[in-house]
Amino acid sequence: MTWFENVNKIQYEGPKSKNPLAFKFYNPEEQINGQSMEEFLRFGIAYWHTFTADLSDPFGAGSAIRNWDKYDGMDRAKARVEAAFEFFEKIGAKYFCFHDVDIAPEGDSLRETYKNQDTIVALIKDHMKDSDVKLLWNTANNFTNPRFVHGAASSSNADVFAYSAAKVKKQLEIGKELGGENYVFWGGREGYETLLNTDLGLEQDNLARFFEMAVDYAKEIGFDAQFLIEPKPKEPTTHQYDFDSQSTHAFLLKYGLQDHFKLNIEANHATLAGHTFEHELRYARVNGLLGSVDANQGDPLLGWDTDEFPADIYSTTLAMYEIIKNGGLGSGGLNFDAKARRGSFDQEDLFHAHIAGMDHFAVGYKVASQLVEDKVFENIIDDRYASYKEGIGKDIVEGKADFKSLEEYALNLKEIKNKSGRLEVIKATINQYLLNAYTDK
Amino acid sequence: MTWFENVNKIQYEGPKSKNPLAFKFYNPEEQINGQSMEEFLRFGIAYWHTFTADLSDPFGAGSAIRNWDKYDGMDRAKARVEAAFEFFEKIGAKYFCFHDVDIAPEGDSLRETYKNQDTIVALIKDHMKDSDVKLLWNTANNFTNPRFVHGAASSSNADVFAYSAAKVKKQLEIGKELGGENYVFWGGREGYETLLNTDLGLEQDNLARFFEMAVDYAKEIGFDAQFLIEPKPKEPTTHQYDFDSQSTHAFLLKYGLQDHFKLNIEANHATLAGHTFEHELRYARVNGLLGSVDANQGDPLLGWDTDEFPADIYSTTLAMYEIIKNGGLGSGGLNFDAKARRGSFDQEDLFHAHIAGMDHFAVGYKVASQLVEDKVFENIIDDRYASYKEGIGKDIVEGKADFKSLEEYALNLKEIKNKSGRLEVIKATINQYLLNAYTDK
Amino acid sequence: MTWFENVNKIQYEGPKSKNPLAFKFYNPEEQINGQSMEEFLRFGIAYWHTFTADLSDPFGAGSAIRNWDKYDGMDRAKARVEAAFEFFEKIGAKYFCFHDVDIAPEGDSLRETYKNQDTIVALIKDHMKDSDVKLLWNTANNFTNPRFVHGAASSSNADVFAYSAAKVKKQLEIGKELGGENYVFWGGREGYETLLNTDLGLEQDNLARFFEMAVDYAKEIGFDAQFLIEPKPKEPTTHQYDFDSQSTHAFLLKYGLQDHFKLNIEANHATLAGHTFEHELRYARVNGLLGSVDANQGDPLLGWDTDEFPADIYSTTLAMYEIIKNGGLGSGGLNFDAKARRGSFDQEDLFHAHIAGMDHFAVGYKVASQLVEDKVFENIIDDRYASYKEGIGKDIVEGKADFKSLEEYALNLKEIKNKSGRLEVIKATINQYLLNAYTDK
Amino acid sequence: MTWFENVNKIQYEGPKSKNPLAFKFYNPEEQINGQSMEEFLRFGIAYWHTFTADLSDPFGAGSAIRNWDKYDGMDRAKARVEAAFEFFEKIGAKYFCFHDVDIAPEGDSLRETYKNQDTIVALIKDHMKDSDVKLLWNTANNFTNPRFVHGAASSSNADVFAYSAAKVKKQLEIGKELGGENYVFWGGREGYETLLNTDLGLEQDNLARFFEMAVDYAKEIGFDAQFLIEPKPKEPTTHQYDFDSQSTHAFLLKYGLQDHFKLNIEANHATLAGHTFEHELRYARVNGLLGSVDANQGDPLLGWDTDEFPADIYSTTLAMYEIIKNGGLGSGGLNFDAKARRGSFDQEDLFHAHIAGMDHFAVGYKVASQLVEDKVFENIIDDRYASYKEGIGKDIVEGKADFKSLEEYALNLKEIKNKSGRLEVIKATINQYLLNAYTDK
Ligand SMILES: [Co+2]
Ligand SMILES: [Co+2]
Ligand SMILES: [Co+2]
Ligand SMILES: [Co+2]
Ligand SMILES: [Co+2]
Ligand SMILES: [Co+2]
Ligand SMILES: [Co+2]
Ligand SMILES: [Co+2]
Repeated sequence: MTWFENVNKIQYEGPKSKNPLAFKFYNPEEQINGQSMEEFLRFGIAYWHTFTADLSDPFGAGSAIRNWDKYDGMDRAKARVEAAFEFFEKIGAKYFCFHDVDIAPEGDSLRETYKNQDTIVALIKDHMKDSDVKLLWNTANNFTNPRFVHGAASSSNADVFAYSAAKVKKQLEIGKELGGENYVFWGGREGYETLLNTDLGLEQDNLARFFEMAVDYAKEIGFDAQFLIEPKPKEPTTHQYDFDSQSTHAFLLKYGLQDHFKLNIEANHATLAGHTFEHELRYARVNGLLGSVDANQGDPLLGWDTDEFPADIYSTTLAMYEIIKNGGLGSGGLNFDAKARRGSFDQEDLFHAHIAGMDHFAVGYKVASQLVEDKVFENIIDDRYASYKEGIGKDIVEGKADFKSLEEYALNLKEIKNKSGRLEVIKATINQYLLNAYTDK
Repeated sequence: MTWFENVNKIQYEGPKSKNPLAFKFYNPEEQINGQSMEEFLRFGIAYWHTFTADLSDPFGAGSAIRNWDKYDGMDRAKARVEAAFEFFEKIGAKYFCFHDVDIAPEGDSLRETYKNQDTIVALIKDHMKDSDVKLLWNTANNFTNPRFVHGAASSSNADVFAYSAAKVKKQLEIGKELGGENYVFWGGREGYETLLNTDLGLEQDNLARFFEMAVDYAKEIGFDAQFLIEPKPKEPTTHQYDFDSQSTHAFLLKYGLQDHFKLNIEANHATLAGHTFEHELRYARVNGLLGSVDANQGDPLLGWDTDEFPADIYSTTLAMYEIIKNGGLGSGGLNFDAKARRGSFDQEDLFHAHIAGMDHFAVGYKVASQLVEDKVFENIIDDRYASYKEGIGKDIVEGKADFKSLEEYALNLKEIKNKSGRLEVIKATINQYLLNAYTDK
Repeated sequence: MTWFENVNKIQYEGPKSKNPLAFKFYNPEEQINGQSMEEFLRFGIAYWHTFTADLSDPFGAGSAIRNWDKYDGMDRAKARVEAAFEFFEKIGAKYFCFHDVDIAPEGDSLRETYKNQDTIVALIKDHMKDSDVKLLWNTANNFTNPRFVHGAASSSNADVFAYSAAKVKKQLEIGKELGGENYVFWGGREGYETLLNTDLGLEQDNLARFFEMAVDYAKEIGFDAQFLIEPKPKEPTTHQYDFDSQSTHAFLLKYGLQDHFKLNIEANHATLAGHTFEHELRYARVNGLLGSVDANQGDPLLGWDTDEFPADIYSTTLAMYEIIKNGGLGSGGLNFDAKARRGSFDQEDLFHAHIAGMDHFAVGYKVASQLVEDKVFENIIDDRYASYKEGIGKDIVEGKADFKSLEEYALNLKEIKNKSGRLEVIKATINQYLLNAYTDK
Repeated sequence: MTWFENVNKIQYEGPKSKNPLAFKFYNPEEQINGQSMEEFLRFGIAYWHTFTADLSDPFGAGSAIRNWDKYDGMDRAKARVEAAFEFFEKIGAKYFCFHDVDIAPEGDSLRETYKNQDTIVALIKDHMKDSDVKLLWNTANNFTNPRFVHGAASSSNADVFAYSAAKVKKQLEIGKELGGENYVFWGGREGYETLLNTDLGLEQDNLARFFEMAVDYAKEIGFDAQFLIEPKPKEPTTHQYDFDSQSTHAFLLKYGLQDHFKLNIEANHATLAGHTFEHELRYARVNGLLGSVDANQGDPLLGWDTDEFPADIYSTTLAMYEIIKNGGLGSGGLNFDAKARRGSFDQEDLFHAHIAGMDHFAVGYKVASQLVEDKVFENIIDDRYASYKEGIGKDIVEGKADFKSLEEYALNLKEIKNKSGRLEVIKATINQYLLNAYTDK
């Protein structure tokens, strides 16, 4: 059976193509810097948005039209696996990601939930055998069920902590079973609605304890995936403990967890925290924390997580610049934690949306590669910070200066001459790179 | 004497040029739709940002380095006029805009202020004779001087209302003298800091009275410039009465002023009001209110008016789309109400910044023209709203339906079938237009 | 049968009471200005939040524990009516509000939906006979069902326009049947997700046509309730056409609807639009548009509609000040469009939350009354705007001044002397009023 | 000579006083918990807002009327010292704070700047001898002068690093000279305007190097003040490195500086970072970082640092709760980093504004003390987290649980029972405490 009968494998047709079911910019085989686009970009499909979600919003019931919805329960879960692998194949993505509840319905008991998952995991494993698609990461959804109303590892209720632990334990086992390359922790309800009834100190301590136990158990079972924390500042909570990359860094350093975790940076979460996507990537990169990326975008005029497919080529270019400078994402990838809009409810829109996302990251990759090759930013930086490579600047960087030597130097300075930052020229240059990127095609 | 000795007239060199002092996209003579770029785009230079401002911010003294700052008072004002006309010529802008206080220093009395202005206006007029540069608009700065601390036309102090009226009267006369094509009202302090001591009703009534007097006086002196209100939601006030285009529309309708005013839409003010630039333009266009544009951009992550030079070609494209659909801006233009960044303090950066702004609007114009030519959006709209062109939809639009006929129709509907909005495809299409725009050059 | 068996009728016990199921500040019989609190405050219960909603959020399934959820379909709908009237009685609210879908489940066809509604409306009517509870307003939910994915009256699909009309027609009839005092239009999806596929002009014209038809039909059936539009800037849409009070005013004036509509101002919607609650109330009041109030509050640090129960006595005080100055709300009331937090999931929390809301509005009412009695703000205003009561100011207000007379006056002004706005003193005074409000009790 | 001739020493007159020049709630001698209000609250006056600033804003020249402005240069600086000590005495504040440039004008050279400072410091020291007013903290303004356009310790220009070091060195010496109890670092321009030309890694390393040198130099000269970093997320920069308390914690931990620095938490900076004031205080407290407080408030609807005098008694109550739980502020204090509004330009408004701020913190202190005495929050926490004091919860906290034991426990759980968070009751309780706080006076 086929779930997307009107869609064939998506082909690259080039920038001028008017075929909505073709790539215009993502050419999987195109070599950049000795690697194919496919290898470097490591696109991942988010199971939840693509196969499980219904496009409901707080004011509306689901609008998505999906042909697997004629089934229910485990039957639907099985149909989704089939549809998923057909989709992976046709869109040409090599990775996927899921939460436990995305792939299999919760049972009446934890044991039954496990059983449901085992059934589906076996099915997924079968499909993986016939495919070169890999598990980028899995995770436990410890936020949707009302039992997590006050948090999971940071719940005020120890039973919920225990239940959450059991759920993560199971996912670590599944991750190992499926060869997952990373494991993600997004603390959807690890935060608070109000400080007025919250023991912030205990909750953060417990969260750290939970992470330590996860590290221990992964080691125990020999699951060597990269652990990733995905920061988000708020929503659904008022304050989420993993607010942004630097806050999460503080948490890791405080609890001595920094060697076991990297970050999964989501573009829209950056925006909600008041940062650009590239800021979060840069901070993570500079601190050795850039693990993986949830590739989406938000609407800067809206105050919630819109999880849009990436459409802004400025953003994909600057993101890819950071990723290139990071030497790639290692075991991480570009997971489309993105949903077609509520108004894009057709099943075919899943293709349109992913084609767009992949194309726009391909543009970003191509342009960023060119910027790196031409050392555009590197030359700016070299010139701008040149004063730290000699004289007093070199002394500062090498630890040979102190306030007394610096004061002496300052007292004898004739004039301080700064150089213009030339931001307008730099921005215009980026536009030139974008607009010239495909001129020779 | 020359004020920009290292800069020659800026030439168009094409998309691949690496000359920072050349246009890459703005080719004044390029014909689009039977008109040159120069004619259609009607670029204006903002006197305040370019010749008067010093790049200070609330935490910093001015950083701008300007060679006319060796002078003071009226001497500096005269030097600025010379520099301005040299700049207009070299950058190739055909319009300029100013506030009264930009061109001449305030005197110790209103009479002396007038006198200073008269001197400079005569000088400007002389320069205009030798040039094809025109006055896009002028305006009175009724917000900087502490006398406007509680507002100008909406001040709690009737003396300030009178003083403000005198200042606008003078500017109307100067506008006439210099052949100004528009006259702008931006109500910098026409709003409130707090409702707790504000008679909102009286203040808005007074503001309307002020506008009526301005209309009357312009008529009296035969000054037939288009009057424009520039909405902004806040800053410096907590609430500015001309919050956004639709709020200002309410004001105009309430006071019967709608035939005498159009809007001057500023991109950054749109953002501060929680709107996109194109929303404000669209609302104004659909309601016959689109008069002129303050062409800049804000930073969506910052909560104040950054007045950046336009660098986002998405934004310039969608703006130019609205302007084309409006049949151009009439007597209005694209005024760069934008400042080089504080870190771009060199005098030459004034060129860099304006080149960038002009180039990016040229890109927007070119791409939007192509979109219009190909009826990209028009076809989407035609298809999407087709149901209003026949049957029940036609009845609705033609006023032939009522709740009873509609209910009868609805009760007999088998099924309601909506079409996908295809937003992801539309956004990808815009990217294609951008990336393909210069492929044949 | 009783649905709230552990709760008796809530009594007023005074400010020091520690009984969570007692009023501390709301004393229904307390006379203020010759009217009881109960008469003036006209509290309304929102059926949706209190009896229908489950406290789900975009990341979580419903957490609410409700004893009527043991039933399903029409049985649950009937149970909810019983529970509702028991709740109204016990909490002591005299009004309630509902959407069509709150009171009865949608059927497989519009006809069946009507039938379900008829059954429940008859039941409600029965309960109303034995009670002094009245219908503050009803409305049609034209946003939840996926058929409204592209809007209702502003849908791109004429069938949806027709279906929406049928639904509103039915609600007008039900409003009449139940003696509803107002009828509300909240345009949940009357706006756009993106301008890129939106015919803004047509959509707003259609919206106006829809309102005209509603006015006509109400007249036809003799339903003389006050029509109310409830502004909200965004969510679920990106831009909602009734953005705020002033935007909605523009809409009403543009389409000549201003005599038929007032506004239902919601506190949280004000915040989302970048305004204070009191701003929206003030604008509505000054323009004769203040019809009713959705009494809730938002979290200024969160970007979505949290619909919290009013807890901020500054806000309730300033709101009640506007309402008192408006001469009360006429046929309108204070509807708690508010939900207990997701973490306040017990059925009893419905009482806690409403007690809090009623108490906090009672505080606001008491303090605002005292402020009005003492003419605190009135004296500030009188003093501050005194210059408009004589001389040049009087001329301005009376239309006897023009730019020439004002210039003459300004040229002869020696000095302009403004008075301090004294905001710090005013704010401190409000705190004094709050902290002294219950000192004699 | 007297600078505030119409103002006598401000006296406490109680909650009902209508004297604008009297305290209503701040009674310095009132004993709470065995300490006087004056001792615990440690109010500080910010020299810059009170004696140096002119109430200008980005769109307006200074509106402040100050009688010391008849002088200029060093004469004005000296007059300000006199005025300041008269003000401290009359308002009854025991602490003050300054930046180098607040107290003395910059000279033409660094040497001259030092000399100016030495003159004024000697004068201040003289005044301190006759007074019991102490220096809460001083700091170097390394952001106003254009030389800091690209940062100070994080400047791209090593000369600026050196100059900044010299300025801080001097302030450390002055701090020691005047017995300063703390020393503050606010990194006004330590951040970036754009990542596009920023070496974020080098800049943060340099910032850390700068702090290390400061620590070393303070030790060398025996200046044992508490070092404080004041976080702020942005403004004037686009991104400031000390974004918020947790980000700053990351910085301190990364560079091993955590033993040498605490935080100076400003309310308005919290808001700009998307946090509540109490969140920042709580995070700092729980992590041993709460050093001092900049007591002001922002406007949540405005996107810039309004530095308002504290007027919200909810905020002062929750702040004082954190401070009480911290055991007070140690060497820190409550510094009014707040300015009278631009419209409150009279010299007397300086008193009104500070009286308001002190009164509102006194209210907060009183109410918070009562809340602590009654263990309101403590009982909520005890009850809510009770499950961590026995059984599986105790095991978790004591490190005796692991994923396997927790899974076993979870598999055998019958049901998970959460307790309602009762947020509505808690908020109502706080209102009761506020409204009852002065009922017995
Ligand atoms: Co994500
Ligand atoms: Co997201
Ligand atoms: Co402007
Ligand atoms: Co602006
Ligand atoms: Co509402
Ligand atoms: Co709401
Ligand atoms: Co501060
Ligand atoms: Co501040």
